[in-house]
Amino acid sequence: MRVGGGPASQQGVRRANLALVLDAIASAPRSRAELVAATGLTRAAVSSLVDELTTAGLVAECGPAAPSGKVGRPGTALTLAPDGPGGLGGEIGVAHLAACVVDLRGDVRQWRRLAVDNRGRPVEAVLADLAGLLHDVVDRAGTVPAGLALAVPGPVGAAEGTVVRAPNLGWSDVPVAAGLRTALRTVGAIDLAGLPIDVENEANLGGLAELWLAGRPDDFCHLSAEAGIGAALVVGGRLLRGAGGFAGELGHVPVHPDGPDCPCGARGCLERYAGERAVLEAAGLAGVDGDWVVLLAERARAGDAKVRDALAGAGTALGIAAAGAVSLLDPAEVVLGGGYAELAQWLLPAMRRELAGRVTVRPWADERLTVSPLGRRGPLLGAAVGVVRSVIADPGRFAED
Amino acid sequence: MRVGGGPASQQGVRRANLALVLDAIASAPRSRAELVAATGLTRAAVSSLVDELTTAGLVAECGPAAPSGKVGRPGTALTLAPDGPGGLGGEIGVAHLAACVVDLRGDVRQWRRLAVDNRGRPVEAVLADLAGLLHDVVDRAGTVPAGLALAVPGPVGAAEGTVVRAPNLGWSDVPVAAGLRTALRTVGAIDLAGLPIDVENEANLGGLAELWLAGRPDDFCHLSAEAGIGAALVVGGRLLRGAGGFAGELGHVPVHPDGPDCPCGARGCLERYAGERAVLEAAGLAGVDGDWVVLLAERARAGDAKVRDALAGAGTALGIAAAGAVSLLDPAEVVLGGGYAELAQWLLPAMRRELAGRVTVRPWADERLTVSPLGRRGPLLGAAVGVVRSVIADPGRFAED
Repeated sequence: MRVGGGPASQQGVRRANLALVLDAIASAPRSRAELVAATGLTRAAVSSLVDELTTAGLVAECGPAAPSGKVGRPGTALTLAPDGPGGLGGEIGVAHLAACVVDLRGDVRQWRRLAVDNRGRPVEAVLADLAGLLHDVVDRAGTVPAGLALAVPGPVGAAEGTVVRAPNLGWSDVPVAAGLRTALRTVGAIDLAGLPIDVENEANLGGLAELWLAGRPDDFCHLSAEAGIGAALVVGGRLLRGAGGFAGELGHVPVHPDGPDCPCGARGCLERYAGERAVLEAAGLAGVDGDWVVLLAERARAGDAKVRDALAGAGTALGIAAAGAVSLLDPAEVVLGGGYAELAQWLLPAMRRELAGRVTVRPWADERLTVSPLGRRGPLLGAAVGVVRSVIADPGRFAED
Repeated sequence: MRVGGGPASQQGVRRANLALVLDAIASAPRSRAELVAATGLTRAAVSSLVDELTTAGLVAECGPAAPSGKVGRPGTALTLAPDGPGGLGGEIGVAHLAACVVDLRGDVRQWRRLAVDNRGRPVEAVLADLAGLLHDVVDRAGTVPAGLALAVPGPVGAAEGTVVRAPNLGWSDVPVAAGLRTALRTVGAIDLAGLPIDVENEANLGGLAELWLAGRPDDFCHLSAEAGIGAALVVGGRLLRGAGGFAGELGHVPVHPDGPDCPCGARGCLERYAGERAVLEAAGLAGVDGDWVVLLAERARAGDAKVRDALAGAGTALGIAAAGAVSLLDPAEVVLGGGYAELAQWLLPAMRRELAGRVTVRPWADERLTVSPLGRRGPLLGAAVGVVRSVIADPGRFAED
């Protein structure tokens, strides 16, 4: 096969080798000698690559490596730099804003959440608050992030960083990345306005967090409720985004086609049975202030029969929709995430019943319906960890910046 | 990056180059000089690779190449060998068996279909009939196939060539490939029992045929009815098979969760509204002999109101299920295939109505619901064409055989 021009190709190989070495270090602290063994590169190449990664602030020495059993001094163990460039995550919710910083290892350094009703607020006001929160966590963490990723409660369009539609916020075609960049310029000591900004649907980020941090298999559906109900569909270890980036719109899958009208214009959608508003109404709690998930969980735990019935009803609808998704997609697992994770004990019995009764033409087992350990922290974690994962996947790009 | 051992790697490069050259020839007849330009390989390498492909019977000369405008004699144009190894396809239906041979270019050389009620027949009898049909088309085509692929009316398990469940045939855990190999040994002049045998769900093959032969985009859902209702989900140009190979079981997606019992054990599945039996019952034609699709189309064309209503009802249910699939998967197109393609004019209005009314949180347009030009020929075409596509994708493997 023809290979591209010389210099470009050599640069490409070096870049791939930087990633190879950093990936080996990310999986476990290693000496240079161990890196030679793990990568198959020469000792000279490893030394030069490690130097470059160290200069870029990605790798640090962390004392002597474990004795290898071989003759001679043990080498110095190399590890991901604890103060290297981290990941900055932001989250726009219907009733909250949040921001966090993770370090290069994915450990959370700072985490702040602000309860604020964003429904109907001017976009600029929301983004100004978020910018303040982002600057705050970066200042406290004391590490300059490599990038910023934002979880938003709606599908993100092909035009980069545009929220196409977030009906729960009253947003449509909002250019979130550009607006946030402007807001970031007006506050803060550290320059965050120059960072690359990724904008992603919160449900997708929740699913990716589950894949990266919770040891899920390569094929699963992650069902979550935040502003709306969303699914992240992971197929072969990758997110299924669909032709236009709108995949996973589980909330508007028809559950009872002749059911009640849905604000989306259709009838009997899942959200009319298992969405925040529907469950609160069924529980007799419509209009009650506060965090709906916490509210429902407290009442259910206290034995409130009406709340438990409402959650059982939501579980039935979720189970019907999940059964359809399982029939179509054949995932290894269905994961209950986001706010549903905190309500799982009252949702699961009905979900299990529906799945067992409706998924009949293939093997299905109760234990394939699982609960996310990340819950509502998933989307923000997914945003921030995604940033450092992309640094580790291609450190050459970062080193060049 | 470390590269594997020398000889193995050289063999890998040669194999890749064989594929590169054959792919260039498959896209259009070309002279050796044109192959040099198209592939970037040296003239000597192209000559040697062409020789190998010619010896393997994959490439033939087809007269002088088109004048290039350059000085000198035009070279000899090379093309896929018209008598090279073809693809053999077989199909097991509930009420028919079929077999076909396509040549290396994908052109159909032989096609035979046998109406036979396979419900409840011994597996051996079905496979013996199919073996006879396969030998018959190969004898008539006069070309030795490179492989055999079989379309079956049910999901195919991980154990190669096993039909896990074909309830409409009364089959469960039938080792089809092994059984067919045995049957192929007992008949015929040409040895077919030694061929590689692939077994695949008919719905998946119908979708692949649509992708390969009907110019579909890389993301679409192909809905078809044969024995049951199946969907082929094509995502990023590849078939979505699911964790266990059971993806696309559209027939048992719940449409009306409290609807009538389904033989699968669940209630209100799509098959209870749009499957063969359900539509015939609704049309007042239960128990009438003959090809159900032809029967319904004839009556509907003649203006039979009850049949038209039955098809509209099926279209409504298909539209509801398709709306759910669109919400989950965001395909660029939904393709109505298999038997539904012949009934499309009576199904489409209701399907369009449901899709327009239920797919509201993203762009949707009527023209994204399309009809397969292949119809019920899709699965068998997909089987046979898949064989020659795999030869062209890796001719080295075939040449070594």
